[in-house]
Amino acid sequence: MAVHQSTLEIKTRGAGTLEITGEVDRVVRASGMTTGTVHVFCQHTSCSLVIMENADPSARRDLERWLDRLVPENDPDFEHTLEGPDDMPSHIKMALTRTSETIPLARGRMLLGNWQGVYLWEHRRAPHTRRLVVTVTGE
Amino acid sequence: MAVHQSTLEIKTRGAGTLEITGEVDRVVRASGMTTGTVHVFCQHTSCSLVIMENADPSARRDLERWLDRLVPENDPDFEHTLEGPDDMPSHIKMALTRTSETIPLARGRMLLGNWQGVYLWEHRRAPHTRRLVVTVTGE
Amino acid sequence: MAVHQSTLEIKTRGAGTLEITGEVDRVVRASGMTTGTVHVFCQHTSCSLVIMENADPSARRDLERWLDRLVPENDPDFEHTLEGPDDMPSHIKMALTRTSETIPLARGRMLLGNWQGVYLWEHRRAPHTRRLVVTVTGE
Repeated sequence: MAVHQSTLEIKTRGAGTLEITGEVDRVVRASGMTTGTVHVFCQHTSCSLVIMENADPSARRDLERWLDRLVPENDPDFEHTLEGPDDMPSHIKMALTRTSETIPLARGRMLLGNWQGVYLWEHRRAPHTRRLVVTVTGE
Repeated sequence: MAVHQSTLEIKTRGAGTLEITGEVDRVVRASGMTTGTVHVFCQHTSCSLVIMENADPSARRDLERWLDRLVPENDPDFEHTLEGPDDMPSHIKMALTRTSETIPLARGRMLLGNWQGVYLWEHRRAPHTRRLVVTVTGE
Repeated sequence: MAVHQSTLEIKTRGAGTLEITGEVDRVVRASGMTTGTVHVFCQHTSCSLVIMENADPSARRDLERWLDRLVPENDPDFEHTLEGPDDMPSHIKMALTRTSETIPLARGRMLLGNWQGVYLWEHRRAPHTRRLVVTVTGE
């Protein structure tokens, strides 16, 4: 049993989901581990993670549009507005999705379903550089 | 320290929550491990997991009805409609709940609270066979 | 590789988010472990966990207010009302946030982002004593 840990820096292109399955997979392969779990942790509170269908991009667009509509900017009840109209909705969208994801590892590969991809979901309008910590635990 | 991994195939009966605590518990017992964590991973993007009260079934019915109302079918903003009116709402409901759950393990049993059960939440209308990967990590 | 497990009892002051980063950190330090993951599990279905900004308290107030508005009490569709008007909304809020959080561990400390804190989110109106199980896995 061993632990392998690595930090990824991901440049987002503004609001939306960005597939990071390949980046996480490279950490997994570098670890040399074959069985266990892969934990991906997002060190921010205005972006988040989600495991989503990676076949038809329209599914992701619909998901993004639906959440934008659920959590609109300029909500008259918001107090926390100094960091811009997209800041507070970003925190709420993060809380409704995930700060980390754990994926099983077998035969040296993540055991994702056929249509599953790992996504970093940027909730701010502007591009950001985001830090993710990947921890592989196993054999 | 060791890792034990097993795949469960669960047949759902159409939309709704289905308790799988017993199925996960059988994998835990077969592992022979006593202390650590139990990770349950759903290999699909149109069903999800949740840990919910398993005492009064009306609590689960209310949760299901509430989420159905929040994410209705036939949303005029949906582009991704080819797989049926229940497909895109399923992806959104999945993203709002959980793709995996991790439960502590002690003395050979999952340390769930008194009223907690582990549920597979089918979001599609039709029954499906769903694959879950259970990974027990510990001693 | 080893596992260290400990249970925390946290007294909440009624509905709202309560920072528990310090309490979790004490368990991590007591474990003596330096690299791996820290898993925090909430043994209840009417409170939950979230990792949220710990800089400006107005961000948490806005998050709490927004979720209260999304999931109001006295919903005429609720069947499960015997435990009080705040019970069913509590289960729904729990399902939309997280039952457990996993945080990477490096050099003996949790690798949280600069502005991230771990919060227990009490969804019931009355103060409660809540049990959290912390499992540190690693080296």
